[in-house]
Amino acid sequence: MADTQPKKTKPETIKSIGEFGFIEKIRESLKTKNSSVISGIGDDAAIFKPASGHELVFTTDMLVEGRHFDFKLITPWQLGAKTMAVNISDCAAMGAKPTVAVVSIGLPKDYPMSDVEAFYEGMKGMGEAFGAQIVGGDTVGSDNFVVNIALIGEVESGKALRRNGAKAGDALLVTGNLGDSSAGLHALQHPSAKNKDITAALIKRHLTPTPRFTVGRALSTKRLATAAIDISDGLSSEIHHLCDESKLGAEIHEEALPISSSLKAYCEAEGLNPLDFVLSGGEDYELLFTVPLTHISQVIQKVPAETGTPLKSIGRMVPAAKGITLITRKGERIPLKAKGFDHFAKK
Amino acid sequence: MADTQPKKTKPETIKSIGEFGFIEKIRESLKTKNSSVISGIGDDAAIFKPASGHELVFTTDMLVEGRHFDFKLITPWQLGAKTMAVNISDCAAMGAKPTVAVVSIGLPKDYPMSDVEAFYEGMKGMGEAFGAQIVGGDTVGSDNFVVNIALIGEVESGKALRRNGAKAGDALLVTGNLGDSSAGLHALQHPSAKNKDITAALIKRHLTPTPRFTVGRALSTKRLATAAIDISDGLSSEIHHLCDESKLGAEIHEEALPISSSLKAYCEAEGLNPLDFVLSGGEDYELLFTVPLTHISQVIQKVPAETGTPLKSIGRMVPAAKGITLITRKGERIPLKAKGFDHFAKK
Repeated sequence: MADTQPKKTKPETIKSIGEFGFIEKIRESLKTKNSSVISGIGDDAAIFKPASGHELVFTTDMLVEGRHFDFKLITPWQLGAKTMAVNISDCAAMGAKPTVAVVSIGLPKDYPMSDVEAFYEGMKGMGEAFGAQIVGGDTVGSDNFVVNIALIGEVESGKALRRNGAKAGDALLVTGNLGDSSAGLHALQHPSAKNKDITAALIKRHLTPTPRFTVGRALSTKRLATAAIDISDGLSSEIHHLCDESKLGAEIHEEALPISSSLKAYCEAEGLNPLDFVLSGGEDYELLFTVPLTHISQVIQKVPAETGTPLKSIGRMVPAAKGITLITRKGERIPLKAKGFDHFAKK
Repeated sequence: MADTQPKKTKPETIKSIGEFGFIEKIRESLKTKNSSVISGIGDDAAIFKPASGHELVFTTDMLVEGRHFDFKLITPWQLGAKTMAVNISDCAAMGAKPTVAVVSIGLPKDYPMSDVEAFYEGMKGMGEAFGAQIVGGDTVGSDNFVVNIALIGEVESGKALRRNGAKAGDALLVTGNLGDSSAGLHALQHPSAKNKDITAALIKRHLTPTPRFTVGRALSTKRLATAAIDISDGLSSEIHHLCDESKLGAEIHEEALPISSSLKAYCEAEGLNPLDFVLSGGEDYELLFTVPLTHISQVIQKVPAETGTPLKSIGRMVPAAKGITLITRKGERIPLKAKGFDHFAKK
């Protein structure tokens, strides 16, 4: 932009306006009305009134530049929205309504204020879409960009969806399609000679995921699911977490896995195996959950119609001794190992 | 240690045990019983039941290696305790009881597990001393060590101590002594030719601050203070925040400022001015609060006796038009500028 302007003006940075100038600017941009918030930014801590008859859920996620994201591939606005979406997804997996969030941000001092504001706009917009208000935070200097959101949600007492409630025999379901997000990242990282029409949908799923809030709420309020988890590190990892907590095994049918036409086309064009993205890709932010057979027809018939989110039954829970098995299209039974993303993987 | 052992064993690192091995280890070490916690580590989010008749306060703080601390000067255990203390101090400044915390940590992959465990022990010990339980978190890779705590506290409805409630004429008080912590940091950074007896007390104040929890609670539950703030960035900065929020000015008497004998001796020996540490030093984590004249004798007489924490009246609140003034020992009135720590200061 600068070279098209008659005079070169120095862009405003966090350094030029200072920490407290920055806080004042952010505070002004985050003024919203949420009746449960008694006091937001501007005190040692925010104050809010929890809803009576509810329990609270509490989650946090940290994203580090160069590890979780690359500003060459994602805009500050998208990153803000995604960081908030990741936390809301955790609330959704508990069947809870997001309420208030605090945001810590570590910034290089020459980071442009316009980018910081776009980042906060992204967080704020995504938060407001699901009822979450940013009520406070911390701002510090850092060599690279790092952000942490801590989010509180509320859920009717006793109705939270936990990981440990599944029973042997329960059906295993997922929302949406799996693998699109990681294929979108692959497409961003390998931009040459791609079919843009195919990749656009995958990239969108990677950059701007939508938390499955309405499904989580439908499952918790009507007590339709016995357990739930969000798929952040890949299906093969998350099924292990669900089974570990519920002390069960699981059988998953390869042919039942929900794969989008975009992912199929991308993998065909690039000579890749969709199953790698589906099982180990990560960042899907779909929900994986278990439903007693007595409720399965109600879930399959009503939840997609009410929420607009497709659901697919991909297998069932079995006793722990049977382990976690993938049943291939050919009918082979192979042990399914956790191959999801480990932040400290031995490479 | 390694060279005294018969065989050189490779120390366990976060890389060698993996992210989920790490989480399992931390989860085991953090098992405690807190009746309000329904589910802690091991789900998408923790679940807890807020106390009825209470409001919740919500605060967060991020600390970045190389900006906020230097592992040459502070041990992992001390840093863990301090990070938790900083958050509890924010609760104390609101008059709230800390309840549950989530911890995000960014770690280089070769960071020794024994140091991570010491860090968590420090956080856990400090938390438990004030009623806070770690119920969840996030663990990610990072080039340098970064930690974020988000802490929830509870306070009886309507009794939170805010920054905006001070009235003109209220007395201005502080707990403890000011400037010790930053003088302790100065001593750590200038280790040559120091009187070790003098510096030890200052260094202790810097490395292991104690949140003024009991004072905060005494002030809130008995409605003795009209406003409060914790002194994290130096008195001269914090008085500006308090005045800005309460739309007032203040007068502070230099001769009333609480200065420890250690700070006096250190400054005498080193040719430094104690007032620089007292006004601009930061990291004191003392409370600065305002008391109506009708309550001042009760506060001065009873709170120190009940809490074991000394209090000092350092001035009074005045109308905003009078500004924020330091009255020197010679009776000069000089405008007091905010000189506290700005993370993005123009150096």
